[in-house]
Amino acid sequence: MAATVKQIHKSTREVAMARIENGRTQARTDFLACEEPLEIKLAYGPRGQRQSRSLAVTMRTPGEDEELAAGFLFTEGIIGKAADIKAMRHVGDALAEEARENILLVELSEELPVDFDKLNRHFYTSSSCGICGKASIDMVRSVSCYFPRRDYPLIQASTLQALPDKLSRQQAIFECTGGIHAAASFTPQGQLLVVREDVGRHNALDKLLGASLLKGQMPLREQAILLSGRLSFELVQKSVMAGVPILAAVGAPSSLAVELAEEYGMTLVGFLRGQAFNIYCGEERVVLE
Amino acid sequence: MAATVKQIHKSTREVAMARIENGRTQARTDFLACEEPLEIKLAYGPRGQRQSRSLAVTMRTPGEDEELAAGFLFTEGIIGKAADIKAMRHVGDALAEEARENILLVELSEELPVDFDKLNRHFYTSSSCGICGKASIDMVRSVSCYFPRRDYPLIQASTLQALPDKLSRQQAIFECTGGIHAAASFTPQGQLLVVREDVGRHNALDKLLGASLLKGQMPLREQAILLSGRLSFELVQKSVMAGVPILAAVGAPSSLAVELAEEYGMTLVGFLRGQAFNIYCGEERVVLE
Repeated sequence: MAATVKQIHKSTREVAMARIENGRTQARTDFLACEEPLEIKLAYGPRGQRQSRSLAVTMRTPGEDEELAAGFLFTEGIIGKAADIKAMRHVGDALAEEARENILLVELSEELPVDFDKLNRHFYTSSSCGICGKASIDMVRSVSCYFPRRDYPLIQASTLQALPDKLSRQQAIFECTGGIHAAASFTPQGQLLVVREDVGRHNALDKLLGASLLKGQMPLREQAILLSGRLSFELVQKSVMAGVPILAAVGAPSSLAVELAEEYGMTLVGFLRGQAFNIYCGEERVVLE
Repeated sequence: MAATVKQIHKSTREVAMARIENGRTQARTDFLACEEPLEIKLAYGPRGQRQSRSLAVTMRTPGEDEELAAGFLFTEGIIGKAADIKAMRHVGDALAEEARENILLVELSEELPVDFDKLNRHFYTSSSCGICGKASIDMVRSVSCYFPRRDYPLIQASTLQALPDKLSRQQAIFECTGGIHAAASFTPQGQLLVVREDVGRHNALDKLLGASLLKGQMPLREQAILLSGRLSFELVQKSVMAGVPILAAVGAPSSLAVELAEEYGMTLVGFLRGQAFNIYCGEERVVLE
């Protein structure tokens, strides 16, 4: 059997596969979450001295590339507001269409000072105290744009419990493929605002934050964010950058995720499933009926 | 409530949290998977001209750092065999103990030519045809050390179905924290060989492959590997580098994961749960009773 992968739309592909069930084989069609590389290129510097360079390559699900780039640049501390981006476009005229769609050029404002040292991967190695969880947490402070407000906003426990159902009803690609991460933003009253999906969990959150940034909605101090998977340090770091006060996930947090959330006064909720959940810090924002 | 994070052993930490269940709060203790940065430093070059540089920082669960580094260097195409590494040690005498444990110096053999252009992140941008899934697949060819053999080995469908249970019985940190990825290797007869866990799914696989490399067991042409999560392009790429013929996962593959596995003649199994699973390519290795 050959896996004939056929593209249906940007975010999913149809594939022939064999389903083995109770010892019997059936030829079937499956839908897979599409994964393609995206190269983010930057053009920057004052008029007459413009430079360009390749910033990063990420494996992502095509779609909302501009939001992904905006969210990535924001959470890496390269830009702070939508106006820092002059324009974004897919480039590479000489390339096949598929390749062209995988290179995005971001034209930064001429006034924006660009400091590549601020990039996340350099956080750690530039720390004078060496490399450890504590140093990683301290480094977030040096680039964070927004912080959550203490004790604000409040959210009802029953509202929190209802979020996963609201998310799964909106997860279009997951419904189809079963193979994708999601990030969703809600009001403290539980109204769903934005959902983004991607094969990479960081990308799903970058797309969500980028969408808000491009609409001029930063900081997100009056929103709760729900993630479909587990909570790593980097997902908390991205949320801290955006001033998110309440971060919840269906899965477990890591040790450093909890330490960072506590340091920045965020409410961190894990194992949000059924009628129960765990609050690791920021319990004061959660109201029991 | 303050999250007092207390380290129990290298891989888990104890944390105070509030469990909310049916509207009632209970103060509880939870165990979290530990997450800390690891910086991998290389010393390389011929005697008298040794150089050193920082290669990468990854967020990982402490433990088996040498395996992680060996697996990472191998799957990035920097080394090809255990003898390419002369020594590995945690460094940074002037640092606090925690920080010291997060920097690993890898002394490469004096004879080994080191080509940093081979690093994964450069695969894409060095491609003359532009950046797309096809180019990503082609680039694997230029660095792959081993390839699976066609039509070999065979594995019974019932053996495949039994793997997830065998893995979960061995997942020590997951049992404790519920928040960690696992990678495990098996014989085609279903005997469990090695299990590794990490907050990062790539790290779990790098640790597994690194453990085999350091024991001189490459290539893994007679093994099946099971992953606890979803199957991305990079997980297939790492397995192709090691010559793994059968790669199975509890979750869904991405489109590019299937394309790469098919290109290299690997058997790719997804949604391996209960009495059923999907074969996306390489069906000829799976024997139905």
